[in-house]
Amino acid sequence: MLVKMSMSDLKTYINERCALVDAALHQFIPSADTSPATIHKAMRHSMFAGGKRLRPILCLAAAETCGGDLDSAMKAACAVECLHTYSLIHDDLPCMDNDDFRRGVPTCHKVFGDGIAVLAGDALQALAFELVARIPANGTYNAADYVLELAVTAGSRHLIGGQVMDLEGEGKKLPLEDLRYVHESKTAALLTSSIKLGGMSAGASRQQLKALHTFGWDTGLAFQIIDDILDVTQTSEKLGKSAGKDLATNKSTYPALLGLEGARQEADRLTAEAMKALDIFGTAADRLRQLAKHLFSRES
Amino acid sequence: MLVKMSMSDLKTYINERCALVDAALHQFIPSADTSPATIHKAMRHSMFAGGKRLRPILCLAAAETCGGDLDSAMKAACAVECLHTYSLIHDDLPCMDNDDFRRGVPTCHKVFGDGIAVLAGDALQALAFELVARIPANGTYNAADYVLELAVTAGSRHLIGGQVMDLEGEGKKLPLEDLRYVHESKTAALLTSSIKLGGMSAGASRQQLKALHTFGWDTGLAFQIIDDILDVTQTSEKLGKSAGKDLATNKSTYPALLGLEGARQEADRLTAEAMKALDIFGTAADRLRQLAKHLFSRES
Repeated sequence: MLVKMSMSDLKTYINERCALVDAALHQFIPSADTSPATIHKAMRHSMFAGGKRLRPILCLAAAETCGGDLDSAMKAACAVECLHTYSLIHDDLPCMDNDDFRRGVPTCHKVFGDGIAVLAGDALQALAFELVARIPANGTYNAADYVLELAVTAGSRHLIGGQVMDLEGEGKKLPLEDLRYVHESKTAALLTSSIKLGGMSAGASRQQLKALHTFGWDTGLAFQIIDDILDVTQTSEKLGKSAGKDLATNKSTYPALLGLEGARQEADRLTAEAMKALDIFGTAADRLRQLAKHLFSRES
Repeated sequence: MLVKMSMSDLKTYINERCALVDAALHQFIPSADTSPATIHKAMRHSMFAGGKRLRPILCLAAAETCGGDLDSAMKAACAVECLHTYSLIHDDLPCMDNDDFRRGVPTCHKVFGDGIAVLAGDALQALAFELVARIPANGTYNAADYVLELAVTAGSRHLIGGQVMDLEGEGKKLPLEDLRYVHESKTAALLTSSIKLGGMSAGASRQQLKALHTFGWDTGLAFQIIDDILDVTQTSEKLGKSAGKDLATNKSTYPALLGLEGARQEADRLTAEAMKALDIFGTAADRLRQLAKHLFSRES
């Protein structure tokens, strides 16, 4: 029964899920002594650098919401984490955002050099597709559906497109429409695919998948707006990365365009819409609701 | 009837196949004015920079050898070309092989900058997986098989692993075993997958697929040894890239390890084995044989 859940339950739940995801990732990524060792060390460095496993946890919760099992969903969960980690490794490169630290840990290229970091990201993207192809088919979805869901999200119009517009927007004041595209592409798209792949692995109906899409998209956009807000309001120590960087680099953000209060209102509006989308699941979506509320109230 | 084929037939055949592959690639890659335009321009710059379409042509020929049709095989053919082009874009980066020209054309990062080049490669890898997922299923293979074939080849033990060992071997004299691994991983693996995916799209039997695997692997390795030989014996103008670079950078090559004659003998041995593997197809493999002979006798 998921009806009465306290925040301490949630912390236990998240910790347990993190441990399960980590164990599965350890199994799916070749060990650090598998030849060529450098690449597997580099992949593991970034993969086990204190990530919160947000996308896999949402993926698993979506699968449970649709009555699926953990085993089928775990490959999807690990795939989206591989894709996310690859995108962070490449985004952190000197020729992109040039970040030395991520989650308080030196970034991949700082430890292994730029060339190996590019290749570690490349290999993690390939691994992500290997893993989604291994999600068992069910009466509704098969490998073609899983792979297309991830491939479109990973492609030039979403994940990559967002990073391109982000790069090109550096030092410029992007209009709200473009900033929204960046946030949608860089964050909402993969969060949505994480949640949808969980639902698909559980054989979600078309109506359920549509609801998960709306929930994921609005949650993802709210999540990114909250990220913008935290960059303004929190310290580097608490964030585990350089705070105030957006302001220092004159980067377009929701607080910069709408003011802090306006950005908060937009996040609240999206949060409410995300929650509404879950109505069709009844109490089966309680864990997803609780996770979303946890995300919306985070401080780092 | 394929029995009597002259070299002029082959040239016509290759030109026609190139045109078909190019037309399909133009259709599969978003147009240069699709937003964000920069990424699609960068993807197209490298994709239409005079590539010989070797992998797609072999893929299509393998499909025909197994009685398949062009339509089903074309997505596989374009997928392997996307994956190959992505790997070239990343290999050419300053943090890797640092090449300014490829096929006589400025490399992606020289035209668009390092950041966009990394992203163009990333997007082409995602597109490759999108395309293999779209190859129609048949009684023997489905999207899971197609994607796994490409993902394992693209991953940390093959394509990426080879590039890592290549990077780490710079300025060192690699033993033959390691050099063979680099050549197998960087060249033979994707050439083999190209040929196998063609066969799979045509519903090849397990025995046929095994024969295509042997043909692809031996052809790929021979192809790379011939590449090493041409770097020693040809001019930059003829190659469309800097000749003699391997020698200048003290790179391990087959001619450096076995001598020019030893390298030629090894290529001949592999060529013979590749041809032998095609015996089970009878005359249906005549086009593959002819293409392989053409590759082995190339001068650039």
